[in-house]
Amino acid sequence: MSCDNSERFTRAETDFSNLFARGNDKPHSEKGFKLLNLMLSYLLPAKNGEEPTIQFLLEVVEILTNYVRKTFDRSTKVLDFHHPHQLLEGMEGFNLELSDQPESLEQILVDCRDTLKYGVRTGHPRFFNQLSSGLDIIGLAGEWLTSTANTNMFTYEIAPVFVLMEQLTLKKMREIIGWTNGDGDGLFSPGGAISNMYSVMVARYKYFPEVKTKGMSAAPRLVLFTSEHSHYSIKKAGAVLGFGKENVILLKTDERGRVIPADLEAKIIDAKQKGYVPLFVNATAGTTVYGAFDPINDIADICEKYNLWLHVDGAWGGGLLMSRKHRHKLSGIERANSVTWNPHKMMGVPLQCSAILVREKGILQGCNSMCAGYLFQPDKQYDVTYDTGDKAIQCGRHVDIFKFWLMWKAKGTIGFEQHIDRCLELSEYLYNKIKNREGYEMVFEGQPQHTNVCFWYIPPSLRGMPHGDKRREKLHMVAPKIKAMMMECGTTMVGYQPQGDKVNFFRMVVSNHAVTKSDIDFLIDEIERLGHDL
Amino acid sequence: MSCDNSERFTRAETDFSNLFARGNDKPHSEKGFKLLNLMLSYLLPAKNGEEPTIQFLLEVVEILTNYVRKTFDRSTKVLDFHHPHQLLEGMEGFNLELSDQPESLEQILVDCRDTLKYGVRTGHPRFFNQLSSGLDIIGLAGEWLTSTANTNMFTYEIAPVFVLMEQLTLKKMREIIGWTNGDGDGLFSPGGAISNMYSVMVARYKYFPEVKTKGMSAAPRLVLFTSEHSHYSIKKAGAVLGFGKENVILLKTDERGRVIPADLEAKIIDAKQKGYVPLFVNATAGTTVYGAFDPINDIADICEKYNLWLHVDGAWGGGLLMSRKHRHKLSGIERANSVTWNPHKMMGVPLQCSAILVREKGILQGCNSMCAGYLFQPDKQYDVTYDTGDKAIQCGRHVDIFKFWLMWKAKGTIGFEQHIDRCLELSEYLYNKIKNREGYEMVFEGQPQHTNVCFWYIPPSLRGMPHGDKRREKLHMVAPKIKAMMMECGTTMVGYQPQGDKVNFFRMVVSNHAVTKSDIDFLIDEIERLGHDL
Repeated sequence: MSCDNSERFTRAETDFSNLFARGNDKPHSEKGFKLLNLMLSYLLPAKNGEEPTIQFLLEVVEILTNYVRKTFDRSTKVLDFHHPHQLLEGMEGFNLELSDQPESLEQILVDCRDTLKYGVRTGHPRFFNQLSSGLDIIGLAGEWLTSTANTNMFTYEIAPVFVLMEQLTLKKMREIIGWTNGDGDGLFSPGGAISNMYSVMVARYKYFPEVKTKGMSAAPRLVLFTSEHSHYSIKKAGAVLGFGKENVILLKTDERGRVIPADLEAKIIDAKQKGYVPLFVNATAGTTVYGAFDPINDIADICEKYNLWLHVDGAWGGGLLMSRKHRHKLSGIERANSVTWNPHKMMGVPLQCSAILVREKGILQGCNSMCAGYLFQPDKQYDVTYDTGDKAIQCGRHVDIFKFWLMWKAKGTIGFEQHIDRCLELSEYLYNKIKNREGYEMVFEGQPQHTNVCFWYIPPSLRGMPHGDKRREKLHMVAPKIKAMMMECGTTMVGYQPQGDKVNFFRMVVSNHAVTKSDIDFLIDEIERLGHDL
Repeated sequence: MSCDNSERFTRAETDFSNLFARGNDKPHSEKGFKLLNLMLSYLLPAKNGEEPTIQFLLEVVEILTNYVRKTFDRSTKVLDFHHPHQLLEGMEGFNLELSDQPESLEQILVDCRDTLKYGVRTGHPRFFNQLSSGLDIIGLAGEWLTSTANTNMFTYEIAPVFVLMEQLTLKKMREIIGWTNGDGDGLFSPGGAISNMYSVMVARYKYFPEVKTKGMSAAPRLVLFTSEHSHYSIKKAGAVLGFGKENVILLKTDERGRVIPADLEAKIIDAKQKGYVPLFVNATAGTTVYGAFDPINDIADICEKYNLWLHVDGAWGGGLLMSRKHRHKLSGIERANSVTWNPHKMMGVPLQCSAILVREKGILQGCNSMCAGYLFQPDKQYDVTYDTGDKAIQCGRHVDIFKFWLMWKAKGTIGFEQHIDRCLELSEYLYNKIKNREGYEMVFEGQPQHTNVCFWYIPPSLRGMPHGDKRREKLHMVAPKIKAMMMECGTTMVGYQPQGDKVNFFRMVVSNHAVTKSDIDFLIDEIERLGHDL
């Protein structure tokens, strides 16, 4: 296999207590240290640093591969919970404080172990707390390589391969969305909130390009529309970009969290009557809590009628486009002007990996370009249209593409499809298991559209209680109490929240490829074990 | 050393051609594949996936450690340049296109090798192209661990250790800035441009908090000030946040790129006379091209007089605060209301690691909070003031702190100081070497303040030519031509750009701890070798 002429590593017993990081070629000037210096070794770029460097990295890899191994082992805890003050006071041998003098690499290795020990295993098959979960081995290898390459996406000059991978992958995503020939543009951005912010910026530039130069005073009072159930980042974008939160108008949803298109139209008409100018509509494909898919086609009809920008926030639900069985839930997405799609959520790619995709080519560049001469020289020897930096609001941009590209190579489109289908099957299994089970109430009727299963667990003490404020108050405290106990025990983690007038309920999601039915069963058993006597 | 009960890995001969990523427990349904399936192995979470997983990761580590080894070896090229169309057409065995079917891990390993092969070694001792360079081994180990932990900074709940590390490190940075008791607030953000954007947002919120709710129409016409030499991200922030580019007023600098304070005051008065409202002044500590430090104290006096927000963009120069010898260049920084400081530049931390630091506690939260119930539940069992997510414009936020914290542990404050001092000594060496050398002209007089050395190389053919348009035209083409040849040869990389009315010149910077005087000598020799006959 390893047919190149590179050396194969061999592990050697290494005394890390005499090994230090500092590769300074100037000996330390303090007395005595010079003598000691002779006995110490240093990492690269120090002279003779190669062997210590390799041995140190292999020791780290040992720690990491053990962590990976245990993460998939269900007898390992999901977390070993400590309060902030406990960790700040210092656990045995683990001191978070920074000091003036260097520590030996022996201590650094201890710090690495402890950092993992007191952390949370987001890849554990019983970690259900976030939309992003799981630990994909190919994705992990991709991140290790990315950090070793340690480069920046802003120019082809210093990231030729990654820039092309991003371009090809974004094109593929646009094809899957259904835009003609996969045309358009896009970027990977640091998370869905920023991707959504891009969509609002680009919409503003499309209709009021002079805002870039003159500011919001060059535009009339613009309003944005998004549902009550949509992600808070749309409202945040309104605040950040100078629209103001109150100009982000929240749309009513049906009992399952989907936008009511008639409410959108009514609010557009209302806004126009008040003299405001409707600009932008966000349709969510997979809401954060309910996993609801807004009816994109109905919304697109309204956007076309009133000439509004249509954005689809598919941060969570975009992954379903990979599934022939489930992609109908996003019907009409090809009519969107922009789409947010986070492979780091439903597709299991390591954090972060979020794409903003835009149907109109050139508009990202127009919106964001500042033509910095020191970075985007027009007189380079290669085709500088491959320099992506001037499209972004960032200057330096982390390489988020490689892990995703590598996973796509290793799984194929078909592998992502199987992953999506399997996660949805598991959530269907959960839904069927609890929908009629004693002690459970579903937050909304009917089978969920995404993997989100929202439910209350009703402890026996509340089961006979008449509905009313007292029961509501008590029920509101059940999920936080169970969650706190779960974390103390370290057995599993699942999210909860209130929503509108509904008191705290559990939101179960599945995006981790390591989850099996037995883990779903475990969660239910655990909720009942911990909640029975509340 | 490895005293825990974890297994030590051993490498085994592995046939990666029969190994696939997909850990699906449902056998593939296509005919024939089922049979074949028996002979294949899969990574975790597949049954029996542990051993293949470890072997695969070790093989990747072999690729990466070989890459690291060669990066520090000066006989290795900095890059193996190819044009976009060449890489897109596919190099032997390296095909960037994504397909429907999975590839074996043998191919995945080839892809990893090729990705590195056609990339740029930003850690190479002769890579001088960017403000971020070098490959710090501890930082690298930190990134490997970070990606293995694969979590998110938004809550203490899922990133307890990292959240506390961030808090302690930011406090330490504020102490070094000189804010009383290290009080204040801060965040690590995805790069200096975003950190600078935060500063403008927070300034706006401080003086016009109603903009958050009502938008820019609730404020008068606000203007921002920054120098002609400052980073383009200030202007970009003006465009993004709805101020408009033309309300970012550029200040004149002296011949060395430092703001002329009198020009700031004149422009403030002028703006007020026009009825605009001055809001914010950016002082750059280490400009991108010249490495100039604006006179912060003089600027702070003016900001106090006119009650303006003072931001210091120390993305590049902030690192000098770690050096007792050089920190005087940032005198007055303790008077700033906010500071951008990118450890990923001068301090050699892997990409990305950028801090926005704010003197007033609570204002980041006030400015950005949206109180999303699904993430920031008030009824958690721990002190939820440790949840940082609502301070950010991002929702999910990558863990950028660990690598930096680990490097600080391993080097100590003193190690960073030595690194900074050494880089500045090297640039002084370069400056002294070329300032009177035949064929060189310095872009500005006197010793540079930072590691930036800006110069023209004048090929013999231009040396006798009278100054004028013809010479300017020819000189403008020299740096791009030499740079293109450097990249074709793969021997070294250094940046160039025009600035104001000055034609293309080289900007040499040193931030890589692997650089020695011999590398500086090499660069000069290489410029002369490649440029001699132009």
